Amino acid sequence: MTASVSSAKTPPEALSWLYRGVSEIFPNQPDSSDPAENLVQRLAQTDRPLRVKYGIDPTGAEIHLGHTIPMRKLRSLQDAGHTAVLILGDFTARIGDPTGKSEVRRQLTAEEVAQNSQTYLDQVRPILDFDTPGRLEIRYNSEWLGKLDLAKIQELLATMTVGQMLAKEGFALRFEQENPIYLHEFLYPLMQGYDSVAVEADVELGGTDQKFNIAVGRDLQRHFGQKPQFGVLMPILIGTDGVQKMSKSLGNYVGLSERSTPMYQKLEKIPDELLEQYFELLTDLPLDRLPETPRDRQQELAFEIVKQYHGQQAAEEARKGKTDDVPEFSLSSVQFPAKFFYIVSASGLCKSSSEARQRIQEGGVRLDGDRVDTIDLVFDTPEQLTGRILSVGKKRFVRLVS
Amino acid sequence: MTASVSSAKTPPEALSWLYRGVSEIFPNQPDSSDPAENLVQRLAQTDRPLRVKYGIDPTGAEIHLGHTIPMRKLRSLQDAGHTAVLILGDFTARIGDPTGKSEVRRQLTAEEVAQNSQTYLDQVRPILDFDTPGRLEIRYNSEWLGKLDLAKIQELLATMTVGQMLAKEGFALRFEQENPIYLHEFLYPLMQGYDSVAVEADVELGGTDQKFNIAVGRDLQRHFGQKPQFGVLMPILIGTDGVQKMSKSLGNYVGLSERSTPMYQKLEKIPDELLEQYFELLTDLPLDRLPETPRDRQQELAFEIVKQYHGQQAAEEARKGKTDDVPEFSLSSVQFPAKFFYIVSASGLCKSSSEARQRIQEGGVRLDGDRVDTIDLVFDTPEQLTGRILSVGKKRFVRLVS
Repeated sequence: MTASVSSAKTPPEALSWLYRGVSEIFPNQPDSSDPAENLVQRLAQTDRPLRVKYGIDPTGAEIHLGHTIPMRKLRSLQDAGHTAVLILGDFTARIGDPTGKSEVRRQLTAEEVAQNSQTYLDQVRPILDFDTPGRLEIRYNSEWLGKLDLAKIQELLATMTVGQMLAKEGFALRFEQENPIYLHEFLYPLMQGYDSVAVEADVELGGTDQKFNIAVGRDLQRHFGQKPQFGVLMPILIGTDGVQKMSKSLGNYVGLSERSTPMYQKLEKIPDELLEQYFELLTDLPLDRLPETPRDRQQELAFEIVKQYHGQQAAEEARKGKTDDVPEFSLSSVQFPAKFFYIVSASGLCKSSSEARQRIQEGGVRLDGDRVDTIDLVFDTPEQLTGRILSVGKKRFVRLVS
Repeated sequence: MTASVSSAKTPPEALSWLYRGVSEIFPNQPDSSDPAENLVQRLAQTDRPLRVKYGIDPTGAEIHLGHTIPMRKLRSLQDAGHTAVLILGDFTARIGDPTGKSEVRRQLTAEEVAQNSQTYLDQVRPILDFDTPGRLEIRYNSEWLGKLDLAKIQELLATMTVGQMLAKEGFALRFEQENPIYLHEFLYPLMQGYDSVAVEADVELGGTDQKFNIAVGRDLQRHFGQKPQFGVLMPILIGTDGVQKMSKSLGNYVGLSERSTPMYQKLEKIPDELLEQYFELLTDLPLDRLPETPRDRQQELAFEIVKQYHGQQAAEEARKGKTDDVPEFSLSSVQFPAKFFYIVSASGLCKSSSEARQRIQEGGVRLDGDRVDTIDLVFDTPEQLTGRILSVGKKRFVRLVS
């Protein structure tokens, strides 16, 4: 267990994928041969795949690029042979904030949480390896948190002091400024930490704002006789405004479920100073071979990311959508509400309504690269379509204009 | 509900039993006709008996006189027609202190707690009215605390802030001095408060150190849509040393299960300056008709309290045990270990061993006023008996000496 490890010391350069875009790994004793305090040594152990935890509360439906940073690292660890343990915090999301003081954490119904979880999984499907056996474990934390009784919760609370909890970034300032901190807020780090105990995590991924919570997980694992997990922290992504962190409420975000064209259009305007970080955190492209001009870099970034979530063809169409080669079709000649197959036919991309119906049914018709195969789809207003790229097959497309 | 109450305003003098020995009642608006803020008005309402809560954690077996102060108030309220809700904190006692740092609150087994609860009930039987229907409800808080899940506990925690909790006497100083306060300690006031919700208490009794916890109960009752309870606080009894509060660990206590003679002997030495408070808190004697000399007061107090817990006869015997009229019997003539019937016979109180056996069997033989009816009882050493009063029937008794 020890001798073989020190002789098998992996050179860090072979693990550049691990360090890419990482702010901090803890514990981190890079010269140590002890796999308990050196993640490189731990990864070199081949006794079993490591269990790499990443958790998210399905409180909302839409995921943005900021959320993908730890997910992409999770994928890299899957590709290195380890097991991604994706925790959907259905319990924590459902509890919400019982004080009702925070709009963000209002109480969700079980149905909303189930719906959000499904939408969430649909969105992360392009990022994670869902298919290779043993590489992905999806867990819902109601499985263990729902079973905790007062005695167990008391045991969790007894592992920490008020002083330790108040030292947490976020609490310290509020306490000093005498802004109320409600007691249940102390439960969150412990619940997240207990997730690590429940899934026996070897590594937990998170944003730099998760250091405290991941450290609580280490303490709880020690308390329950487990080896404490490593923490791997990644930066919080700056939003498209180049100033504040990417956030849905600030409007400076790029959502994974956005259509390819608006996604492309947002990304090709990313401020120059963010480009390198975006490439580092959101793509696998080698950073020493990026295009020379900022404009080319913006286009490359936009293309690469649209490709990740909508595929090569949609990325190409989105790129073309910005050239003058794209013919336009004015929706002013169409009477709304209008059936989709009629619009496809009227656009001239099909010769007749019946051809349009058939191509839609075959799955060959797309809006902004997203397949639309519902024949009976009805659009109520031209605004639902204005600016979007309508395509039939790979070669025929128009931009819909008003 | 309101008109009848204001007209039925009860004169406080009629409730002198209520105020006797009380440090504080809250809320307390003595001039208000609102039964929500004036306990006298509330007691005057005759819609239903009030539910008067008193809780104790059965963490130890022995109860001392300090514990009886709120119990005696509970009895007064029973006698006024209300329902005593006696809560045995079997859940809180069993949880104990999971940090294992406090000897006092080590984890107890279910058996120990059940045993302690039974011993506790045996001891309080002379104080409370166990017999009148509807006057006593004995509840174990595992009934509701054992059912709490994380969502409910979160809801309880969310009713309070860290600042409010740290304002609690005991926490404030420790926090200021940077002595660790473990998070689970915050649960106790909430658990005690939730007990009030569970039993729908109208009034909670406690020592003056319970004000915070009783107030938490009020807040939780409001949160759950109940009318908040009144708090009735009573002094903490000073121990027989006249200095520190009565406590088993300080050795300055009088236990309810103590034999009548040592109980009497301790009480007849109570320092003068404590006498009035002892009379007020531990007896129903009118305070303006106490004996004149301190010595007589001490004897009266000792007699009165021994009478409460061991009956009139034992009190008289204990008092006689201190006069010179009591003949002595020296145990030096007895060979130990010795059977009890033999000692009774040897003492001369019975004419023969067979008479001794018979009187024991009939229940007529007592040690310090406590009946001993086990014929086969064996004493290993004379020290177990030295100083005790042995009596057969009502008129024959000796003091056992070495």
